[in-house]
Amino acid sequence: MTEAKYDVLGIGNAIFDVLVQTDEGFLAAHGMTKGGMALIDEARALSIYRDMGPATEMSGGSAANTIVGVANLGARAAYVGKIKDDQIGRLYMHDIRAAGVAFETTPASDGPATGCSYILVTPDGERTMNTYLGAAQDLTPSDIDAAQIAASAIIYLEGYLWDPKSAKEAFVKASTIAHDAGREVALTLSDSFCVDRYRDEFLDLMRRGTADLVFANEAELHSLYQTSDFDTALKQLRTDAKVGVVTRSEKGCVVVSKDGVIAVPAFPIEKMVDTTGAGDLFAAGFLFGLVRGAGFEAAGRLGALAAAEVIQHIGARPQTSLKQLAQQNGLPV
Amino acid sequence: MTEAKYDVLGIGNAIFDVLVQTDEGFLAAHGMTKGGMALIDEARALSIYRDMGPATEMSGGSAANTIVGVANLGARAAYVGKIKDDQIGRLYMHDIRAAGVAFETTPASDGPATGCSYILVTPDGERTMNTYLGAAQDLTPSDIDAAQIAASAIIYLEGYLWDPKSAKEAFVKASTIAHDAGREVALTLSDSFCVDRYRDEFLDLMRRGTADLVFANEAELHSLYQTSDFDTALKQLRTDAKVGVVTRSEKGCVVVSKDGVIAVPAFPIEKMVDTTGAGDLFAAGFLFGLVRGAGFEAAGRLGALAAAEVIQHIGARPQTSLKQLAQQNGLPV
Repeated sequence: MTEAKYDVLGIGNAIFDVLVQTDEGFLAAHGMTKGGMALIDEARALSIYRDMGPATEMSGGSAANTIVGVANLGARAAYVGKIKDDQIGRLYMHDIRAAGVAFETTPASDGPATGCSYILVTPDGERTMNTYLGAAQDLTPSDIDAAQIAASAIIYLEGYLWDPKSAKEAFVKASTIAHDAGREVALTLSDSFCVDRYRDEFLDLMRRGTADLVFANEAELHSLYQTSDFDTALKQLRTDAKVGVVTRSEKGCVVVSKDGVIAVPAFPIEKMVDTTGAGDLFAAGFLFGLVRGAGFEAAGRLGALAAAEVIQHIGARPQTSLKQLAQQNGLPV
Repeated sequence: MTEAKYDVLGIGNAIFDVLVQTDEGFLAAHGMTKGGMALIDEARALSIYRDMGPATEMSGGSAANTIVGVANLGARAAYVGKIKDDQIGRLYMHDIRAAGVAFETTPASDGPATGCSYILVTPDGERTMNTYLGAAQDLTPSDIDAAQIAASAIIYLEGYLWDPKSAKEAFVKASTIAHDAGREVALTLSDSFCVDRYRDEFLDLMRRGTADLVFANEAELHSLYQTSDFDTALKQLRTDAKVGVVTRSEKGCVVVSKDGVIAVPAFPIEKMVDTTGAGDLFAAGFLFGLVRGAGFEAAGRLGALAAAEVIQHIGARPQTSLKQLAQQNGLPV
């Protein structure tokens, strides 16, 4: 196995975030399920946007947020995702490259616009996402560069890739290349409704070893095993995944593996403003910890730190140096 | 004089803000004058953007920010400014309408893209703006709807309108219509370098009474009268303007008129994050105070309150209800 060129390479739906602070009434009036990610078509996107208040925009996308976090912490990071060559796509490309991430996926020159997520943030800080996949629909196996995948120590994939029509083929192709090159593959289950749509396939990915490391939050874990009992679900996860990491919001996280179960507390915060990107940035810190050869506990603490930063402001990308933040808190960087 | 349909109508350069937190070194490396607004062409825009870190985007434009603040406080507001019918222009149109502002200026269907300002925010919270005017170049007198102007109690114009080639004709046209209808005209001097470019014309606008109320910050005031002595400059402003309002950052503001000189303190803040929009939102609060028939002192306090809100977060548009904030602080709404 040759030395890796990238520490972590992420593959995901490239999505531009349109964020707005709103109230519970807006969610109810539009039939939205609070805290979830709903896929919407262009007509519904227009209808939601028309009713939304003034917004703030920034680049997003679950795996992209994670990869930006990894780069921000100081590791070598790459991203694969499909945008269109339009004004928003150019903002997207700028932001991810400016974050120090290698991003070489060819933008679509025609077809749907760069994908957007209309994100409603309620006063309790919870976010509810409505995603128009747009150009992200068109990620295909041909966007996977075998040499780049083989040169990345960890491949990070999002469960959301099961939604576009051919992205999962790209996902499986990347996983195969990575494993053939002796690399690790991590997967996030993304969203409890996403798990509900693809439960059997996700379980299959874990049981066949297509993914070595699995990230899930509590809702996703419960959905995966269709049980409301946390311990039962956790036990099953420990059987199915080589390493399973379950995030539990203010209760911290739990890491399960053949070596045992480790609980790591959440990082204290002053005020939760917007949970958008909490799971994504947790994964960033955790993956960065693994890259640096830290144990699961230190990796969990790095994840908690990165998540704490991102939930204290609007948007899913870090606004401060996570590297400095980790140093200030005595964590490995 | 018929009853007004709008309390305040603003005319300005419609600009989309691309904000990034950076360090002093970036400004130096790119030859930027800290705290100012520099006009840039497309080539320089590309060159600055290429070197900028990951950004956050939101609608901006000086007079537009003010008008959004006026609407947020609860008054009836309208805006005139030129965007292009492109992706960014559509974000822009959404945001200002979603803020409750009447915005009917026909977007350009060809020509340059919607204008953008690349705004560098340094760790001290100061912002340095690099503005590509784009479609804002093409605001002309034909964009001025005489009936709408005549139906607005106060017309608010930005000095920046002197930069595009024919916007100042639109400005003068609007002022004439407003005065013929018995309305008031307010002007912000916008930027000390802008004052330096158009000093004589701005003085002329004040002395001829084209503008009744003039907003300036200290740097603009000093530039206008080419003196470093504040009291000398203030005395001249009192002679030249029917009402002059000078903002002095943490020192509050001073209102001069034939009735005398009133000083109003700044509103206390926890942490200054980004000064972008400070002057714009001060003007929003002050104009709103006048609309509600409050005296200069209460208007100054409303201005200070709105400015305090906007400098405690990234971006030049309010993120909370200024109306509620004013109520909580016992100010008239």
